[in-house]
Amino acid sequence: MGLTFEVGASSPGGGRRGSLDLAHGVVETPVFMPVGTAATVKTVQQDTLEQIGRSGAGAEIILANTYHLYLRPGHELIRRMGGVHRFMSWSRPMLTDSGGFQVFSLAKLRKVTGDGVEFRSHLDGSKHFFSPEHSMEVQIALGADIMMVFDECVETPASWERTSQSMGLTHAWAARSKQYFEAHKNETPWMGELDGRTQSLFGIVQGGMYADLRRESAERLVEMDFGGYAIGGLAVGEPREVTREMGVDMMDCVLPTRAARHGLLFRAAEPGEADGGAVRMNIKRLEYAEDQRPVDAACGCMVCRRYTRAYLRHLFMAREPLGATLNSIHNLAFYLDIMERVRGELAGFRC
Amino acid sequence: MGLTFEVGASSPGGGRRGSLDLAHGVVETPVFMPVGTAATVKTVQQDTLEQIGRSGAGAEIILANTYHLYLRPGHELIRRMGGVHRFMSWSRPMLTDSGGFQVFSLAKLRKVTGDGVEFRSHLDGSKHFFSPEHSMEVQIALGADIMMVFDECVETPASWERTSQSMGLTHAWAARSKQYFEAHKNETPWMGELDGRTQSLFGIVQGGMYADLRRESAERLVEMDFGGYAIGGLAVGEPREVTREMGVDMMDCVLPTRAARHGLLFRAAEPGEADGGAVRMNIKRLEYAEDQRPVDAACGCMVCRRYTRAYLRHLFMAREPLGATLNSIHNLAFYLDIMERVRGELAGFRC
Repeated sequence: MGLTFEVGASSPGGGRRGSLDLAHGVVETPVFMPVGTAATVKTVQQDTLEQIGRSGAGAEIILANTYHLYLRPGHELIRRMGGVHRFMSWSRPMLTDSGGFQVFSLAKLRKVTGDGVEFRSHLDGSKHFFSPEHSMEVQIALGADIMMVFDECVETPASWERTSQSMGLTHAWAARSKQYFEAHKNETPWMGELDGRTQSLFGIVQGGMYADLRRESAERLVEMDFGGYAIGGLAVGEPREVTREMGVDMMDCVLPTRAARHGLLFRAAEPGEADGGAVRMNIKRLEYAEDQRPVDAACGCMVCRRYTRAYLRHLFMAREPLGATLNSIHNLAFYLDIMERVRGELAGFRC
Repeated sequence: MGLTFEVGASSPGGGRRGSLDLAHGVVETPVFMPVGTAATVKTVQQDTLEQIGRSGAGAEIILANTYHLYLRPGHELIRRMGGVHRFMSWSRPMLTDSGGFQVFSLAKLRKVTGDGVEFRSHLDGSKHFFSPEHSMEVQIALGADIMMVFDECVETPASWERTSQSMGLTHAWAARSKQYFEAHKNETPWMGELDGRTQSLFGIVQGGMYADLRRESAERLVEMDFGGYAIGGLAVGEPREVTREMGVDMMDCVLPTRAARHGLLFRAAEPGEADGGAVRMNIKRLEYAEDQRPVDAACGCMVCRRYTRAYLRHLFMAREPLGATLNSIHNLAFYLDIMERVRGELAGFRC
């Protein structure tokens, strides 16, 4: 068995509260997944990840990047180490992407054929080939609870014709991904350890900014019957209104950790400030040099409980590594706390 | 009152077990002090520092560098923030050096006069002047439990004449340091908060490799009556036998954290290996790529309990910041555990 998903409550606006039962545990949705690109959420210890946020519950699920782990340290090594869970000592759920997005955004000299993508590593220029089958093989070796079909990521914006053609390729690759997955899903490194649970494979809906293509893509993938469905090519530059039309149960983003490393911190707006939403602080600003307040007085995270803006500014200005760590912990807590609040609001609606 | 020091037990070899009562708490000696150069032990969170090591007791005292904090963020800022304890959120004992060593090793274009040292910042080339009085002023603003007289650090090796002359200057500066300290020690930022406790000032014994000068220096400083005595210009390149003749209650070194950032890890030798002492592992070596053992099977630190050599190697090779953090935690635990064992051994001797 892969996963089960139970919807607990739905709001009139299309939001829903759910519970996703995966091989490594249960994830309450909607959920934010911190990105652990190279089997580490940059600068943050696993112990910390497990207790980040106001409630102390920590991150329930994290994401790792197939492309990066394939190149370094290599999926075969991780397979021999027992999968990425054991490799990085993370016992909660995990998701891997297909590698497609990085192949199309990071790698050099890509050549796409019907069969797959030839590319050169951004690390050393070495030549590699990813096909749907190969992406599945790599992701099975990594052993995340949720894996993704291999898809083509079309440049954005793209014409209807170009988008439609690319979507066709993605659907063909989705079918091949599923076929390979079903034939090999018992080769996961931890098979036999978790009560016969298997990994789950998600399809990826493409179709760019075209509603008709999106609909067609969703229908085609549902026919193929995946464990779940991802929305590909979203939040990559299209108008914000388009992004907002999509309702999702799970989301990931490097923003909280990447922004943290650049000294950008999120906090709740104070009354009368910024329309009551979130405020982005640039911690290097002189105004924080002697500011003895925590980043966010309303935040109960381990950084806001202990450190001042003045200290975080000092760490950033002195290029001290602890600055990136503390900033990352706070920003992740900010994201996780928002999702906890959203789940709380949704729980108020009847099923 | 500054400090009290009680000797609990002494070994025939000159070692002794002691208890050092400081404004921010009691330190059991002999003790290793992790170096927190810029008000942070590089890459390690304060929460972690408080629980590092086998016993979970953490670092009892840390060191901060006067020169670095003077330049950035500035001692006046730290004074306004309530001192370095409050600035970095560290409530246990702390020691600051005089700034002398960095002035003589890091700063540019130094000019020494009887009055003090003119130098240029290694950060931006700006011109500064440190005198004994100014070093005291800076260290009082920082507010560490233990501060150091301002001394001249002579280059090594140096002739008897050069060493003797430099020692004379150091003694004159020690007297001036003490005079300023006694007149201003009630200006510490936290005065009034800790039951009337004050900072303590240590003298620094110089004299290079010359036993007669070392003896003279020790006698002269004891006459001046300091809270404690440091050994200056030790372990800076002289023969190891010379270093080993000195018995100390407190020591600091950047080695565990600096080595960690370069991928060098310390562990106890296994039976038959390296004379039973410590072994230095270079984690980037290929032999660790699939090594599922902890760094040190005999170590109970939070890194050895959770992570494999294979994972630490991966983090280092991928230049992931978490690598430096985990390596630093392990190396600090290794040092702190050794000192705990030494204290245990010494406790076996009668007082």
